[in-house]
Amino acid sequence: MNSKGSGRRRFLKDGAALAGLTVGAVRAASAIPGADASELRPNDPHAYGERSRFEDSTIRIGSLGRWTGISDFGFRTPLQESVGVITPPSLHYIVSHGYDPPDIDPRQHRLLIHGMVDRPLILTMDDLGRLPSVSRTHFLECNANSAPFSGPAGAARVAPTATIQQTHGLTSCSEWTGVPVSLLLEKVGVQTGAAWLIAEGSEAGEHTKSIPLEKAMDDLLVAYGQNGEALRPEQGYPLRLLVPGWEGINNVKWLRRIKVVDKPYMGMRESTKYPSLRMDGKARWFQFEMGPKSVITRPSGGQRLTGPGFYEITGLAWSGAGAIRRVEVSTDGGRSWKDAELQGPVHPKAHTRFGLGWNWDGREAVLQTRSTDERGEVQPTIEELAKIWRVELDYFRSTSNIVGHFNAIQPWEVGRDGSVRNALF
Amino acid sequence: MNSKGSGRRRFLKDGAALAGLTVGAVRAASAIPGADASELRPNDPHAYGERSRFEDSTIRIGSLGRWTGISDFGFRTPLQESVGVITPPSLHYIVSHGYDPPDIDPRQHRLLIHGMVDRPLILTMDDLGRLPSVSRTHFLECNANSAPFSGPAGAARVAPTATIQQTHGLTSCSEWTGVPVSLLLEKVGVQTGAAWLIAEGSEAGEHTKSIPLEKAMDDLLVAYGQNGEALRPEQGYPLRLLVPGWEGINNVKWLRRIKVVDKPYMGMRESTKYPSLRMDGKARWFQFEMGPKSVITRPSGGQRLTGPGFYEITGLAWSGAGAIRRVEVSTDGGRSWKDAELQGPVHPKAHTRFGLGWNWDGREAVLQTRSTDERGEVQPTIEELAKIWRVELDYFRSTSNIVGHFNAIQPWEVGRDGSVRNALF
Repeated sequence: MNSKGSGRRRFLKDGAALAGLTVGAVRAASAIPGADASELRPNDPHAYGERSRFEDSTIRIGSLGRWTGISDFGFRTPLQESVGVITPPSLHYIVSHGYDPPDIDPRQHRLLIHGMVDRPLILTMDDLGRLPSVSRTHFLECNANSAPFSGPAGAARVAPTATIQQTHGLTSCSEWTGVPVSLLLEKVGVQTGAAWLIAEGSEAGEHTKSIPLEKAMDDLLVAYGQNGEALRPEQGYPLRLLVPGWEGINNVKWLRRIKVVDKPYMGMRESTKYPSLRMDGKARWFQFEMGPKSVITRPSGGQRLTGPGFYEITGLAWSGAGAIRRVEVSTDGGRSWKDAELQGPVHPKAHTRFGLGWNWDGREAVLQTRSTDERGEVQPTIEELAKIWRVELDYFRSTSNIVGHFNAIQPWEVGRDGSVRNALF
Repeated sequence: MNSKGSGRRRFLKDGAALAGLTVGAVRAASAIPGADASELRPNDPHAYGERSRFEDSTIRIGSLGRWTGISDFGFRTPLQESVGVITPPSLHYIVSHGYDPPDIDPRQHRLLIHGMVDRPLILTMDDLGRLPSVSRTHFLECNANSAPFSGPAGAARVAPTATIQQTHGLTSCSEWTGVPVSLLLEKVGVQTGAAWLIAEGSEAGEHTKSIPLEKAMDDLLVAYGQNGEALRPEQGYPLRLLVPGWEGINNVKWLRRIKVVDKPYMGMRESTKYPSLRMDGKARWFQFEMGPKSVITRPSGGQRLTGPGFYEITGLAWSGAGAIRRVEVSTDGGRSWKDAELQGPVHPKAHTRFGLGWNWDGREAVLQTRSTDERGEVQPTIEELAKIWRVELDYFRSTSNIVGHFNAIQPWEVGRDGSVRNALF
């Protein structure tokens, strides 16, 4: 919103600004004057609050099989407990491909912007803190979210006992704060012929990702804030790329370098796993945007209705294309649909909470939702998705196939005993 | 948004719904099936993430003097570190008048709604979880925020060395989720002649507060969620009243009872401290709404500019009357003003982040902001506030006077050495 405004213009037009940038920062000097260190007692109760001892949600769940560390199939947000649209940073999903978060001292961290630019730039975290910032609410989603894929996580996903944490837990939503990449690129001066960025992280694996310059100029951020405080280590502390609406893999964590180039690099995550292999042996490359999706978070798999009566059916919808315009709910397995109410304000490329009242009569029922985004695209059934992909349904059933961008409608089946089961297959 | 919609109508018109309500709930049964408890390992790293070891902001600050516990003058949000508009729950301000958070088991907690109603109701937390919910972003603010008042906190506030945590730290902003009170009141059937609610908390002090029925029907919530998870113990776990835009004291925590009555009760917090005593010996009673306010969070008191050059001036604005429409920034002590850019979406009765680019020339400067809300009310200077209050300026200077609703413009003075000082007095 303010990325086009006077702060931006002022920063860009002022030749002296860059010199100032490298001098230092406000934030490092923000220690509280007059505070007696002996009185700060950061370990005191209430210094940095904790949740109730009766709350025990975690992003680790045992039922996916063996978990030996952050290198496993991803830590999933317990969406069955979610309320509103904000995900607590402590419960944000994590996929890090085997690498623990590096232990970065923000005073030592630097962001290098170079390549096909007129004026390469090295920025400290303090430099970034002085620049015009924006805050935006956006979802992140792993492209493997809700799809069966090889290994125990896939087996858990296709099981009737699957919870929503297992089926959809690789998406979360936060208020992100940072500096528009477009501002930084205007400052360094992109050269003619440049068309892509390569973003690189600081972790041991040095994850890199190619991103088109057009997207970068549109809505990319280098983000240092999440829900009002510094990023969590697992989310890229102290700096990550934010690529709204696109596969999670693009949102490079522990960001240390942006190189402006003329064509995409075939990095490890471009050339393995993230291309979508088709049955004919071909693959989709550089498929970025996450399609329209929705899921009922309550009641959802593994929960139990304790008797007939009123229940609010509530859940989340999102789309990489922009804002959610409509969510429809069916309580009869897709024969009839009713519009749910969207809880505003509806942020573009963000989780949107919906709700619809329902009186359960005690009989079997299949609950499901479909979302429509601002572009008019409608979330498909699994049968429709198979047609789009030109595959048989069995392709999705198999846990030996790698499937990304699986945004099919998720049915939950309510039994006469009130139990709720995964009814996708 | 959806509080008037079909879910609400469905809940209200269905006679069977209430019977269902008392049967039980989804949430209690939401444990993950198939999970091997031995594998859950909730103490594992990343199970419930923590912040970086390099981040050390707390809501306790030693420079306000002796802190012996939650009973002191309030734990203040470190706004100097804030980004965006969401306050992390761990850093939300706390005022509890001497009472530690009760250790409430949500399975044992009940909300009683009774008094002048046709059908008194007892609700479990699970019952509430089945009802139509809404999520809204709102600020909370203690009516004593930014005012000098008796004791060491007042002395710290008027000192040139005051930080924004000391001057404005008794306000925070969250996404709150809960059930509209209007829905509950319609269900119990309010009797003719009823005009007020009395809300009561479960803590040792049994805090009570009188709230007009008209406000309750407008936008009150019984809230169980904050920023996507259960309330923190300090914020009323498992249930609090949310009274958008009004003094923090109204937002009764650990809520256990709502009694519908015909006139306000003179509870302890109605009859002491919260009435605003005037110089003529009279007092304002039942003054609820917080006026338009704003403050620059960066640069702010105690911070230091490290040299001339570009800085974004950023901060927060809010009003109990609704949405913020305008924030103006002066860098010359109030002689001239420029419009800052508001970061949307601007939520009503919520913190709104603003920003304006500024090139510091290295000379002394006084930075300040004034906000205008949707009702057209403009944040006053301290001189204007004295006139409204019919007091002399000295009245605000004295730390022996109790002053609530102090929403005067906050000037920060930048010295030639880059130091930033409180220039209110």
